[in-house]
Amino acid sequence: DPNLKVFALNSNPVLAQEIVEHIGIEMGKCSVSRFSDGEVQINIEESIRGCDVYVIQSTSSPVNEHLMELLIMVDALKRASAKTINVVMPYYGYARQDRKARAREPITAKLVANLLETAGATRVILLDLHAPQIQGFFDIQVDHLMGVPILTEYFKQKNLDDIVVVSPDHGGVTRARKMADRLKAPIAIIDKRRPRPNVAEVMNIVGNIEGKTAILIDDIIDTAGTITLAANALVEHGAKEVYACCTHPVLSGPAMERIMNSKIKELVVTNTIAIPEEKKIPKLVELSVAPLISEAIIRVHEEQSVSTLFD
Amino acid sequence: DPNLKVFALNSNPVLAQEIVEHIGIEMGKCSVSRFSDGEVQINIEESIRGCDVYVIQSTSSPVNEHLMELLIMVDALKRASAKTINVVMPYYGYARQDRKARAREPITAKLVANLLETAGATRVILLDLHAPQIQGFFDIQVDHLMGVPILTEYFKQKNLDDIVVVSPDHGGVTRARKMADRLKAPIAIIDKRRPRPNVAEVMNIVGNIEGKTAILIDDIIDTAGTITLAANALVEHGAKEVYACCTHPVLSGPAMERIMNSKIKELVVTNTIAIPEEKKIPKLVELSVAPLISEAIIRVHEEQSVSTLFD
Ligand SMILES: Nc1ncnc2c1ncn2[C@@H]1O[C@H](COP(=O)(O)O)[C@@H](O)[C@H]1O
Ligand SMILES: Nc1ncnc2c1ncn2[C@@H]1O[C@H](COP(=O)(O)O)[C@@H](O)[C@H]1O
Repeated sequence: DPNLKVFALNSNPVLAQEIVEHIGIEMGKCSVSRFSDGEVQINIEESIRGCDVYVIQSTSSPVNEHLMELLIMVDALKRASAKTINVVMPYYGYARQDRKARAREPITAKLVANLLETAGATRVILLDLHAPQIQGFFDIQVDHLMGVPILTEYFKQKNLDDIVVVSPDHGGVTRARKMADRLKAPIAIIDKRRPRPNVAEVMNIVGNIEGKTAILIDDIIDTAGTITLAANALVEHGAKEVYACCTHPVLSGPAMERIMNSKIKELVVTNTIAIPEEKKIPKLVELSVAPLISEAIIRVHEEQSVSTLFD
Repeated sequence: DPNLKVFALNSNPVLAQEIVEHIGIEMGKCSVSRFSDGEVQINIEESIRGCDVYVIQSTSSPVNEHLMELLIMVDALKRASAKTINVVMPYYGYARQDRKARAREPITAKLVANLLETAGATRVILLDLHAPQIQGFFDIQVDHLMGVPILTEYFKQKNLDDIVVVSPDHGGVTRARKMADRLKAPIAIIDKRRPRPNVAEVMNIVGNIEGKTAILIDDIIDTAGTITLAANALVEHGAKEVYACCTHPVLSGPAMERIMNSKIKELVVTNTIAIPEEKKIPKLVELSVAPLISEAIIRVHEEQSVSTLFD
């Protein structure tokens, strides 16, 4: 369909290439560079008048650069008469700033939603949001895809015995429950408590992990503090071995050192965020979300083409 | 007045400090830092409920970092119940992307205006816009301050004889005319022409510069290509000496080397953009816009207090 165009910005060109190959189309031609002073310079090198355009960009680090590239691209597409502008954000930066936890904090996740709409996005396709409430931050249509089945499928094919799926904190229990159902396994929860102020946290484990293969699951692994402490506590409390997995491998600061020095046997992640070569340690396994995103793009595009028939 | 609060973000803390000292108030307490993954973290450390707040931030390089700091700060102020949120941008990044010069270009200067309004800015105070049309990109009130009188005053006090004010291109003639009027001097224009395609440009000079002290004036000096070629052409055509001045010293890429190796005797700029130490060469003169901006803030604040009396 010549009215379907996919463009990639700079955050994740490898994933974007996989997506267009999976759909079976050519990548849209554009260049996204910088002027001498660091301002974003965008050239869209083919006509997109009247087209359904999909722009692929994770707002991973450097988040402000990637977000501004995206907003400026959406502005350019709008002014070049795209029919629809569908923003595909495999990773949604600033998702953790989704509420005022303290006085006078921003709600940057909502700001980002407003900025995308202001620039001219007509629909967004997102994946494993840190909080599903972020869907409600948009007034335009949101497609929220799930990465957990991709992670689950990997562990199914490993044929591990006597699994327990573990949530590293209370916030992640629903996610762990979903994976456990698919693996027909029980769950456990790491229950961190500070007995008194200024006393070290106690890593309590709710559920039976003795002699079992534990799979820790989280949505984001950032500095890897939570996940590596959890892994080590599981081994101390008698787990046979510990795998860890997440959808979004942010892996900032001390993350790689902590993971290498931890009891984690394998770290399984998806490619929503491009991982630089120097972080690709042997125990890291990357799974692709390209099939999931490609199918979402095809589905959304069919829907949009049908609605044109009735316009 | 306890209802007047001024906050500075990270682009230009020295100018911001001069501004609060000139007004005679304390700097608003906030911290603007980064989480481990590079996301902006803002803490406003005093109540601003019901206050008229002024946020000082130039969107100079790194422009995307500085712009996102500003948008997130405005969001936080809005949610903390500021009465008015006045954005003071001594330098307006992306101002040169103010029109579609080619097909499918963004108009990023307009996008920036929309983003500021979406975040919650209620008024903006700007200085020497690259194109005065950018005022019309806003639906909120815009105060547009002029830096040229500050530059002119400096040259007046130098008591130079036989001055000619020179515009380095056709776009800057109005600006040169303004300075020339204040100095009671004539103007000249560098008239670049390319006689045939793929042939070097010819630097033609319109106006009499023979034996005179030339003052080149521009709004922005970025890579300094235009201004240094102009200076050298002026000397070749018989100017006695050449000064150069601008409001916004972007000074990116090869700028410093070009200026050092050029015939420019002194480069006079304002402090709308903070200049890093390693660029402070002997022939650079910095003039402060703090008095100009402080007076604008006081005037706007008086106006806003009066309007409260009649609410
Ligand atoms: N990029 C970030 N890195 C670390 N912490 C963050 C980041 N963004 C927001 N936060 C904080 O993380 C908390 C929310 O995380 P959570 O409780 O997991 O939803 C809030 O207190 C935020 O201030
Ligand atoms: N940051 C930048 N550095 C250099 N050129 C730019 C920048 N932003 C926009 N431009 C280009 O500069 C031209 C406008 O400059 P001017 O003719 O001086 O208004 C347009 O062709 C823009 O594409």
